[in-house]
Amino acid sequence: MKLMTQKKSFENQQKEQQRCIQATMLRIKHKIAVISGKGGVGKSTVTVNLAAAFVTHGLHGKVGILDADITGPCVPKILGLKGERLQGGPAGIELALSPYGIKATSMAFLLPSDESPVIWRGPLKMKAIQQFLSDILWGDLEFLFIDLPPGTGDEPLSIMQLLPEMDGVVIITIPSEVSQEVVKKAVSFSRKLNVPIIGIVENMSGFVCPECGAEYDIFGSGGGQKIAEDLGVPFLGKIPIDPQVCEDSDRGTPFVLEHQDLKSTKAFMEIVEKIEGFLKNETRNKIDDSSNNDRSLHTTEEEK
Amino acid sequence: MKLMTQKKSFENQQKEQQRCIQATMLRIKHKIAVISGKGGVGKSTVTVNLAAAFVTHGLHGKVGILDADITGPCVPKILGLKGERLQGGPAGIELALSPYGIKATSMAFLLPSDESPVIWRGPLKMKAIQQFLSDILWGDLEFLFIDLPPGTGDEPLSIMQLLPEMDGVVIITIPSEVSQEVVKKAVSFSRKLNVPIIGIVENMSGFVCPECGAEYDIFGSGGGQKIAEDLGVPFLGKIPIDPQVCEDSDRGTPFVLEHQDLKSTKAFMEIVEKIEGFLKNETRNKIDDSSNNDRSLHTTEEEK
Repeated sequence: MKLMTQKKSFENQQKEQQRCIQATMLRIKHKIAVISGKGGVGKSTVTVNLAAAFVTHGLHGKVGILDADITGPCVPKILGLKGERLQGGPAGIELALSPYGIKATSMAFLLPSDESPVIWRGPLKMKAIQQFLSDILWGDLEFLFIDLPPGTGDEPLSIMQLLPEMDGVVIITIPSEVSQEVVKKAVSFSRKLNVPIIGIVENMSGFVCPECGAEYDIFGSGGGQKIAEDLGVPFLGKIPIDPQVCEDSDRGTPFVLEHQDLKSTKAFMEIVEKIEGFLKNETRNKIDDSSNNDRSLHTTEEEK
Repeated sequence: MKLMTQKKSFENQQKEQQRCIQATMLRIKHKIAVISGKGGVGKSTVTVNLAAAFVTHGLHGKVGILDADITGPCVPKILGLKGERLQGGPAGIELALSPYGIKATSMAFLLPSDESPVIWRGPLKMKAIQQFLSDILWGDLEFLFIDLPPGTGDEPLSIMQLLPEMDGVVIITIPSEVSQEVVKKAVSFSRKLNVPIIGIVENMSGFVCPECGAEYDIFGSGGGQKIAEDLGVPFLGKIPIDPQVCEDSDRGTPFVLEHQDLKSTKAFMEIVEKIEGFLKNETRNKIDDSSNNDRSLHTTEEEK
């Protein structure tokens, strides 16, 4: 009997948390997850720079990042928020605000030191992500970018299940064939979970020697484009390798803001335009489908 | 009552599997895990080339790789075993054998296609790793290299718990500060789990323009060495970036065997020598500690 009561109370708690997540997420207009098959393809750098690019559209303080990589959180360092701690207030936990006006939360803000590993199995990671979504004062945001750890395991699955109303995913790959193999899985993953695919970005694509101008495809070239064509997914663009990009990330400054003349920045801004295009289209489709939307709202009401 | 019987039967099954893993692993002389904090640092390429380097010491068919990356398995492609399937025989499941004489198993050998994602939470991944260790005919091997997915989550934890007699871990990083941050966690993780750290390898360290000889630190330089010094961990060496390395990995041929004149190959072979040195020292220490070893054997007997 006691077990039954405990189970009931746990279920209620879960429902309450899900309601809380829904209420919080309703105040965020667009939610975009950045995913990859393999790690180390520059996912966190792309996420931070996407947020930075959108902030410049008059959205200071209206763009947020959820660093959903629980065991290897990198976003704070790239955002220039290393050493930051989350501050709790009477209403809840406040987000950290980067020098460029991007709000963020990350496991890194909760760890006693850089060295502290988070040796957690899946269920604990799921719980942490739930709390990031429910217990943090996200407020009214225009954009939320979610930086997911590589692969198709616990964290990506949790996020997709907790945020069914996601606008879509941006998939990052490097041009190597090995990375292409794994990115196919990320595409299938998104399709299986019915999340729209905004498109594929090919990062670290070719290196131009600043000394002699010779071009080298360190990790190959064109792999992202090929995979996008093969799988019938939009291709968003290629970002060339530039040591400046890595240097900016290490220093905690978004390269799209700091070095606007870079070939990498120009390529990046074209990708941003394509994402904006996707969002505009999506809004148009939503208005067209408004009758359907109404229906789904009624269903939700009835289910209650 | 029925629940109790089920629990008992499950526990017996678990114990039987653990015994099975122990018996199988007793026939493998050295077990080395390759880990990293961040992904995409070349962990799988290093693993395959370590195995290839050791195979040339007269160990054809005596070196194995366990690809423990369940959601993003890359080892088969790099080993030249793409499209291979595991074959079951009366005695159990046979390992795949690469053209260079390396035995391997991977989740990729079990998937219907390259695109198939493995959308599994932690417990299922743990189960898969257990079965790789218990149900596969590893036979008598001199070396087993375990390629672990990045981070400090389910798979690394499972492997460390299932193989407490591991020789040690080789930790891979790229020189970027962001990667250094995360590699610290890998070091703390190994220490917390009492696994010896063989050392840190700095991969993708500097790029020499083949045209003009100018050197560029695409991801920075010296980061791996610095972190090794800071944390008091042996530094094994730096592997420079070379497009040939990526090309060889994409083609499924170990660069250490295919391109012996590369600067990267020479750097790699120095790392191999240091690992051999570690293993020799370890053997010496084991002989010195033989009385302790006897004791631990007795304890195990008594516990039974």
